Amino acid sequence: MATGIWLVGARGSVAVTSMVGATALRAGLAEPTGCVTELSQLRSPALPALGDLVFGGHDPVATPLAKKADALAAAGVVPARLVAALSDELAAMEPEVRPVPAAPSQRETAAIIASDIAAFRQRHGLERVVVVNVSSTEPAAPPHPAHADPDALERALAGPDPVLPSSSLYAYAAFTTGCSYVDFTPSTGARLPALDALAHRHAVPYAGHDGKTGETLVKSVLAPMFAMRNLRVRTWSGTNLLGGGDGANLAEPGANAAKSSSKQRVLGETLGYEPQGTTRIEYVDDIGDFKTAWDLITFSGFLGTAMRMEFTWHGCDSALAAPLVLDLARLTAAAHRAGRTGPLPELAFFFKDPLGTVPHSLPEQWAALSAFVRGLSS
Amino acid sequence: MATGIWLVGARGSVAVTSMVGATALRAGLAEPTGCVTELSQLRSPALPALGDLVFGGHDPVATPLAKKADALAAAGVVPARLVAALSDELAAMEPEVRPVPAAPSQRETAAIIASDIAAFRQRHGLERVVVVNVSSTEPAAPPHPAHADPDALERALAGPDPVLPSSSLYAYAAFTTGCSYVDFTPSTGARLPALDALAHRHAVPYAGHDGKTGETLVKSVLAPMFAMRNLRVRTWSGTNLLGGGDGANLAEPGANAAKSSSKQRVLGETLGYEPQGTTRIEYVDDIGDFKTAWDLITFSGFLGTAMRMEFTWHGCDSALAAPLVLDLARLTAAAHRAGRTGPLPELAFFFKDPLGTVPHSLPEQWAALSAFVRGLSS
Amino acid sequence: MATGIWLVGARGSVAVTSMVGATALRAGLAEPTGCVTELSQLRSPALPALGDLVFGGHDPVATPLAKKADALAAAGVVPARLVAALSDELAAMEPEVRPVPAAPSQRETAAIIASDIAAFRQRHGLERVVVVNVSSTEPAAPPHPAHADPDALERALAGPDPVLPSSSLYAYAAFTTGCSYVDFTPSTGARLPALDALAHRHAVPYAGHDGKTGETLVKSVLAPMFAMRNLRVRTWSGTNLLGGGDGANLAEPGANAAKSSSKQRVLGETLGYEPQGTTRIEYVDDIGDFKTAWDLITFSGFLGTAMRMEFTWHGCDSALAAPLVLDLARLTAAAHRAGRTGPLPELAFFFKDPLGTVPHSLPEQWAALSAFVRGLSS
Amino acid sequence: MATGIWLVGARGSVAVTSMVGATALRAGLAEPTGCVTELSQLRSPALPALGDLVFGGHDPVATPLAKKADALAAAGVVPARLVAALSDELAAMEPEVRPVPAAPSQRETAAIIASDIAAFRQRHGLERVVVVNVSSTEPAAPPHPAHADPDALERALAGPDPVLPSSSLYAYAAFTTGCSYVDFTPSTGARLPALDALAHRHAVPYAGHDGKTGETLVKSVLAPMFAMRNLRVRTWSGTNLLGGGDGANLAEPGANAAKSSSKQRVLGETLGYEPQGTTRIEYVDDIGDFKTAWDLITFSGFLGTAMRMEFTWHGCDSALAAPLVLDLARLTAAAHRAGRTGPLPELAFFFKDPLGTVPHSLPEQWAALSAFVRGLSS
Repeated sequence: MATGIWLVGARGSVAVTSMVGATALRAGLAEPTGCVTELSQLRSPALPALGDLVFGGHDPVATPLAKKADALAAAGVVPARLVAALSDELAAMEPEVRPVPAAPSQRETAAIIASDIAAFRQRHGLERVVVVNVSSTEPAAPPHPAHADPDALERALAGPDPVLPSSSLYAYAAFTTGCSYVDFTPSTGARLPALDALAHRHAVPYAGHDGKTGETLVKSVLAPMFAMRNLRVRTWSGTNLLGGGDGANLAEPGANAAKSSSKQRVLGETLGYEPQGTTRIEYVDDIGDFKTAWDLITFSGFLGTAMRMEFTWHGCDSALAAPLVLDLARLTAAAHRAGRTGPLPELAFFFKDPLGTVPHSLPEQWAALSAFVRGLSS
Repeated sequence: MATGIWLVGARGSVAVTSMVGATALRAGLAEPTGCVTELSQLRSPALPALGDLVFGGHDPVATPLAKKADALAAAGVVPARLVAALSDELAAMEPEVRPVPAAPSQRETAAIIASDIAAFRQRHGLERVVVVNVSSTEPAAPPHPAHADPDALERALAGPDPVLPSSSLYAYAAFTTGCSYVDFTPSTGARLPALDALAHRHAVPYAGHDGKTGETLVKSVLAPMFAMRNLRVRTWSGTNLLGGGDGANLAEPGANAAKSSSKQRVLGETLGYEPQGTTRIEYVDDIGDFKTAWDLITFSGFLGTAMRMEFTWHGCDSALAAPLVLDLARLTAAAHRAGRTGPLPELAFFFKDPLGTVPHSLPEQWAALSAFVRGLSS
Repeated sequence: MATGIWLVGARGSVAVTSMVGATALRAGLAEPTGCVTELSQLRSPALPALGDLVFGGHDPVATPLAKKADALAAAGVVPARLVAALSDELAAMEPEVRPVPAAPSQRETAAIIASDIAAFRQRHGLERVVVVNVSSTEPAAPPHPAHADPDALERALAGPDPVLPSSSLYAYAAFTTGCSYVDFTPSTGARLPALDALAHRHAVPYAGHDGKTGETLVKSVLAPMFAMRNLRVRTWSGTNLLGGGDGANLAEPGANAAKSSSKQRVLGETLGYEPQGTTRIEYVDDIGDFKTAWDLITFSGFLGTAMRMEFTWHGCDSALAAPLVLDLARLTAAAHRAGRTGPLPELAFFFKDPLGTVPHSLPEQWAALSAFVRGLSS
Repeated sequence: MATGIWLVGARGSVAVTSMVGATALRAGLAEPTGCVTELSQLRSPALPALGDLVFGGHDPVATPLAKKADALAAAGVVPARLVAALSDELAAMEPEVRPVPAAPSQRETAAIIASDIAAFRQRHGLERVVVVNVSSTEPAAPPHPAHADPDALERALAGPDPVLPSSSLYAYAAFTTGCSYVDFTPSTGARLPALDALAHRHAVPYAGHDGKTGETLVKSVLAPMFAMRNLRVRTWSGTNLLGGGDGANLAEPGANAAKSSSKQRVLGETLGYEPQGTTRIEYVDDIGDFKTAWDLITFSGFLGTAMRMEFTWHGCDSALAAPLVLDLARLTAAAHRAGRTGPLPELAFFFKDPLGTVPHSLPEQWAALSAFVRGLSS
């Protein structure tokens, strides 16, 4: 059941960490730590095996994969010994990562994307391909009337002006070529009525948004804890310091706003009210691929007694994201195979800003995910 | 459905905060923040109303309740305005808190305890009484052959030597007088085969051990988070600084050992392995009734990448414990009424070191508790 | 040597805490904790005694001092028992706090200020008066040509348009009426050439800016530590969460910018380079008069090894500022008496953004302060 | 002015990091970050140049230096590229590190030590040699009557029973062979009257104890900050989690006690009173050569207001210690050359538990160090 992962942003940190990791796992050089679908409770014959995943993708930069892998090793994201041991495998993947196409109209660009993916599928005899967006976060896209209707969208894409942000154009190309789509970023992706209609028309599933890898992951267990104990959260204020390419990009006000709002959503939905406080993102070059988040939570208990909790999270975003990319590709491919179309709210476990009306408490999301996997297997 | 709470340690911080709080709630002067049984998901007509709880108990010290309440107000545990407003109600409770009895044999002491409780029940026309141990943590009790058998226990108690630690003698007295028993401390309590047999013989339920009010509460949601994400916890090291009477007592090596082991249990049971690290308790007078815990967690992710998390919890133990005491009394009384006998593992949600083979993940404990309450109501 | 303190913002938290504290010290009800001039190394007969300080001031709001003191007691800033014990003294101060005057021209407003201060001096037979600005932080003032020259300033003040921000108008009124001036805020205050010239013309000293009470205080010892050990600070990123009136005001972008820049100055001046990172201020109502600051410092050591330090400061700004207000009034009055005119850079110890070219390392500032006090005494 | 450093524990982390670093500095491959004697304020022609240092030593283990350096690179203590670039230089040092000698009597052992050092001096034409103890911390040594007198000591050493702990035997060997001695550990070292007399008799200086590299460094600036502001420190409680060989050793109760007491000394001496709280050390294998310390400080300000500060220090002990070892060797050699004999209290800046009656505030220690260096140069 060879399955393709077509990575949008295939030379970025998350993508290359995924490739190195999957290759290392296939070679028996690493443990599947961080891979949720390798837990005994979720392991299932309905999922493509980790060793059956084949990688390709697009990226605007041309840095060789091996060079990026070396940089990740120097930054402590992946072990240098793995990169050294897997140099042949990385070299073999190199031709499958192509430059981002650009044509006079977005329809033509989408056609090149689709044709790149189709050729990739053909070359490797892949049963199906999952397109996964791990590129930089986009600023919020301007609205356009064609976003509401698939046929209007088809017509508008033929014109000279851009209609869709890049993440959505990839969803469009994926759907129209019969591929499923996962958005690991807070960008628009498939979240437009026209694209949802196309996903159903082409009978493919999609998932998103915004991989839950650090501070929000912690929030998704702490907020339910306060709720279950009937403690009143008064303030939840977060500071995120992050370096790397993602940090520089998120320091841009547009991308920052998209991300910050995605990060606070869990509180209102879990607690039933909005505590005071915001989540801030600051770019700190020196932290590199790691991220430090500090959160202060003030809460009141019995008879109003004031109490507080703080936490610091020092995580490597790429190392947290990469195994989830593998999980999502396996789960989405299996859902596709099982005939699921449209959004996959059961994958909310993986996302800060999940699709649909879903629980934001991690344990409830886990229960939904477990049921989903059991459903695939039966 | 007037229900009695007989508090062992009735002049201590937890007990008096419970009394002030329950009285304030009855008078409409406070919200039931921190009371789990007041959450919409758990509210049930099967539970005695908060306003139906009547307080009595034993304590070796003689400090008047009003004076202790003033001290709690000065320490920021309860609002001074509540203590002032409720002075008549506190004065009315005063005669129900009696000195700890002492007789030549433990059997005679138990008889006085039972007679005090019976008189309390009679005076207030109580449907039933729950004995709740909120006294200081005992050192681990020496084993005794009579602990294994109820009849041997009866005989041994008649002798001049102490057979049971105080917490267990209260469980004995409770059971033999037809009362249920809750142990909010890590002491031995009802955890002896002879006492379990007596609980069944007298058809009463019991619950325990060691109220989960702070660091362990946080552990019980963070440890499952790491497990659900297949992240490998390498070290979990905790430091607890606490003041107040409980702090001074727990700084004693014997009590400390009992407590520390109770606090680490959640990790092994939730993660499936024991990470490195210990939990330490230190007495810091200046912190008073508050507690500061700091935990460092190191973990590895995909391909072994080293990451870390720290949290600081600054909570008021009495303010966290008191509403749970009310919850436990209501739940245990309702279980008694519903004919439950022996241990109540469904109340694991409340305890660091719960009875029986139960989940240690807070969300799973919550699910068990919810089912329990639904079962009572049907 | 009765000495007046004329507080601009006399009904604010800092001012009322100063009044309660000085009165409590005079009555022997409190220790001079936090008063630097009461340390054995700095105690000097050249300073007016704490008991010789007399309070008056202006404030736009009319809240009675006793009511404000009660609010401070409820917020945990001052002990309720002191406020109760000192109610007569606070009532006696009440008439000395007058509404902020407003006249058609700033010259006339200044004349009313001066006359209020003169009457206060007269009434209490004060040897001299120190005007201390503890009002809310102003946004940065727009430049005006008359700021450069005292005579041009005199003329411009007679016109209908405002020329000076409020803090500077108070400095003007102080100087022209022969009083010294201390700015405890980051506002403009005496920092205009025209005002400096007036201070010299009237032979009065002045001091400022922006009382160093928390995060910056810590920076002023940690930054020299890194410098003395030749460790390279790469990032210093701070988050300040603060409630109270000052917090709400500082959340305004204008005031925030003034404050944040004042808070980072110590780093460049102590380290000799600017590390990455910023200082952010966020208003969090629930924290009240307290402030929580979290700073992350990343640094490199020998051979570039990456290391890090974090600190959390949880302080009560008013309780930290009030004793420094008393110190500054005593020191400035003594300097005035000793014939000092113009800026007092030796008081840099007290300020985030000190006047003149001065060391920013706390120990060097301490040495300068000690020498200054010794100079006064000799 | 070629100068030898004879390292006791020459194959340990601190020693090998020193060797790699000094070699890298000589080769122009690294900056002298962390070297205090390279700061412009302390640079002096009176000190031997960094490039003039020659390394030798003893170690009980036989791990080759290159292998240890590789392990340090893998642990993130030194850059792998430096270790690779310096392999020839490390190989050249290899024969200078010899096994720890053992003879029937301590006098004979000392003679072998002395002869090893003398041969080293001869081989490299060294002007002088500084013996620096960077071996594992010893448990406190049992007292012995011969510790009081040099002649009694000479006689006792000839017997079959050990008289001196290892650190002191090295000081004895150093002194009697005309070498200065630095103790970077909390072990006994030269702190015996008999050894002090021998240092004077042989006209050599010595320095110690216990390099100040992390938590205590921070204490030595924070404690004076609280003192300078007249804030009352109520509690100072510290937790040190450390891995590596030193961590495992310090987890032994004997060594732990020696270290912990050394770490709290700064508080009493700087504040003038002993706050509540202790310093704990716990071994956490996963942290490796890094150390995480968490300190909670509670303090009271004006009118008793309770406040608190926390800090976390995450440092690499070897990377912090190694440049100080180079500094100490240079400073002690220069002192020796300048005719100084006996203890060097001016080097208190480097130590947790300095010799003599000296200030414990880092800035005062810095001033003493600066004056010392100026004295050497004049």
